[in-house]
Amino acid sequence: MLRTSLGLRIPDGMHDILPDEIALQDHAEAEVLKLFNSWSYQKAVTPTLEYGACIQPVEGEGDSFFKFFDRQGHVLVLRPELTTPIARMVSTRMRGEELPLRLCYAADVFRYSKSPTQEFRQAGVELIGSESPVADAEVVALAVEALRHMEVKDFQINLGHMGIFTGIMDELGIPLEVKMKYQDALAHKDFVGIERLVEESQLTSRVREILLQLPHLHGKEEMLDQVLEWSAQPSILSAVEALRRVYQYLKDFGVQEYVSLDLGILRGFSYYTGAVFEGYVPGVGFPIVEGGRYDSLYEDFGYPLPATGFAINLGALVGRLPIHKVQGAEALVYGNDTSKVIDQTRKLRQTGIQVEMCLDFLTQEEAEDLALRKGIQRIICAQ
Amino acid sequence: MLRTSLGLRIPDGMHDILPDEIALQDHAEAEVLKLFNSWSYQKAVTPTLEYGACIQPVEGEGDSFFKFFDRQGHVLVLRPELTTPIARMVSTRMRGEELPLRLCYAADVFRYSKSPTQEFRQAGVELIGSESPVADAEVVALAVEALRHMEVKDFQINLGHMGIFTGIMDELGIPLEVKMKYQDALAHKDFVGIERLVEESQLTSRVREILLQLPHLHGKEEMLDQVLEWSAQPSILSAVEALRRVYQYLKDFGVQEYVSLDLGILRGFSYYTGAVFEGYVPGVGFPIVEGGRYDSLYEDFGYPLPATGFAINLGALVGRLPIHKVQGAEALVYGNDTSKVIDQTRKLRQTGIQVEMCLDFLTQEEAEDLALRKGIQRIICAQ
Repeated sequence: MLRTSLGLRIPDGMHDILPDEIALQDHAEAEVLKLFNSWSYQKAVTPTLEYGACIQPVEGEGDSFFKFFDRQGHVLVLRPELTTPIARMVSTRMRGEELPLRLCYAADVFRYSKSPTQEFRQAGVELIGSESPVADAEVVALAVEALRHMEVKDFQINLGHMGIFTGIMDELGIPLEVKMKYQDALAHKDFVGIERLVEESQLTSRVREILLQLPHLHGKEEMLDQVLEWSAQPSILSAVEALRRVYQYLKDFGVQEYVSLDLGILRGFSYYTGAVFEGYVPGVGFPIVEGGRYDSLYEDFGYPLPATGFAINLGALVGRLPIHKVQGAEALVYGNDTSKVIDQTRKLRQTGIQVEMCLDFLTQEEAEDLALRKGIQRIICAQ
Repeated sequence: MLRTSLGLRIPDGMHDILPDEIALQDHAEAEVLKLFNSWSYQKAVTPTLEYGACIQPVEGEGDSFFKFFDRQGHVLVLRPELTTPIARMVSTRMRGEELPLRLCYAADVFRYSKSPTQEFRQAGVELIGSESPVADAEVVALAVEALRHMEVKDFQINLGHMGIFTGIMDELGIPLEVKMKYQDALAHKDFVGIERLVEESQLTSRVREILLQLPHLHGKEEMLDQVLEWSAQPSILSAVEALRRVYQYLKDFGVQEYVSLDLGILRGFSYYTGAVFEGYVPGVGFPIVEGGRYDSLYEDFGYPLPATGFAINLGALVGRLPIHKVQGAEALVYGNDTSKVIDQTRKLRQTGIQVEMCLDFLTQEEAEDLALRKGIQRIICAQ
């Protein structure tokens, strides 16, 4: 039946990936998974569809998800990320496995937004069952190595800690309404909004000064001293000390030059509890790596375990990777006897050569033209 | 937030794929894609979500699809197969490319059913722009080679032609109602249903005999002579001659021993028009390969081109493939100085070894126990 104009289109935010582009993405994915494997992470896959009750049990939240009802009336969600589904999987089917458990994945995720890309490829890892700062350092270092391995140019990892923001908000006694607005502006790096919010607030000048400085605390370890000058109450001190140790281990991993501390980082997913990090490349307005520690998620699945991990947005990186041109056929076989053409093609393929077989009878001149247009080096007339 | 029991489950028909199983599926997929590539097929990917208007423009059909509404009220479908999405893609974004066009894919597809598996991995090819029987033979031969390449045991390809069924129905003047029921029973290989239907019909004894024999016409080329004894009207003759030529070319490809003619094949998807085929393995009650010629689909997308192709159900084959055990870490590095452990691990990884790093301080005995449990051969104490 003839398609309408809608039937010729694809839904907003969806994309066809043509041969040159998928070759690039597949190559990057294979390289990254090989690296994850060499760090002892094993690949697993969760389904595309999950119950809403798994992904986002709080009614009304999760407005950026693709949701629909199954035939029993349950809410289904197209996975927006893999961390929660993997927590469900480990808490049910992998309970009791040796800890720490190192898992990795590469899969499409789905997020409703105004972005032109609402389905995109993620590759990531989860390190489950260790609360040590060396676990945080391992995943940050692995993210750096993954980007280096893919030959991504000029990337930058920013590392922060959820406890610093929370501790300072508590210490300063920021009213809930101001805190929520500030948090939202900070998460979106909306510096203008932060300034307006702080100016309009009834806070003391010291508190205002801290709220204005926090988003700009970006650099190396000396940032941490600045935080302790504001407050050294136990929860802040513990977050600062955790970051200091993670950063020390990153030096041992030899990746510190790629990592800056950024105390204004607030990750969007609500499950993060400790050290968090984001990776950026110039010209992309959103993080191409998102990661951090989430020590309460597994408890929500009835299997209390600390955990950390990250995901790389492979789709967004594809345009920034060195080109690996799709390998076309190496030889073209033509002739005017189909049986001979088939036979010659078979024999060539048995030698490991990538062969394109002509389905129609071509003259030598036609075959030469075709090979030229397709960039095929060898032409063989079957006889 | 603590998950309810629903939040710990996955939707019906969905599956987690644990490390041993995904390693097997990934290995099979990589091998098959490499083979497709060596036959000059290039990989492309279409999105997980398509408009209903693309996949199934006829209202009320497609009850086996996962469907929902987008925020504008359009019907969205999780792709149930790739042939139609690729026709959309080629008709829009690849229009004008050199023909014949050879494309391949590996992707998850989604079908609502009573089956325990409603999301499964497919790998397939499309050969677009040739109406030659050698094109049909190429895709059948490639399906055989793919199954051989994966080391699938005891598979069988059955090859039929849509034109034989249609021609015989027309020739015998079967009433539409009987034809629909017969077609449905034939597609489901419901031989008991066919017998009952034929017995209850008012048809002549000759017609009854043909309808009872058709589903059992399964074997080599002599089947075709039987059909011509029933009728040699032009559309039947042309279908029989097409099959004869395809089968001849399959001999040239050296795969005829894997292929039987089966004139009772009726493929489920409505777009098939010519030679069609199915692959079976013992103990699996549905085809693990589905393919055939579909010469009118591209016209529906405003780009009239003949085409043929097939898809392999990789998910269903995984349990039947030779085991490729997941490669675990080759060395375990432990110690009581984290910096030294990290440093030693780095150095070993640089030599290409897959290394697991201990995050906690272990004694030698504890490290030996751990390595034993995890099957890691080498243990290195960092000093």
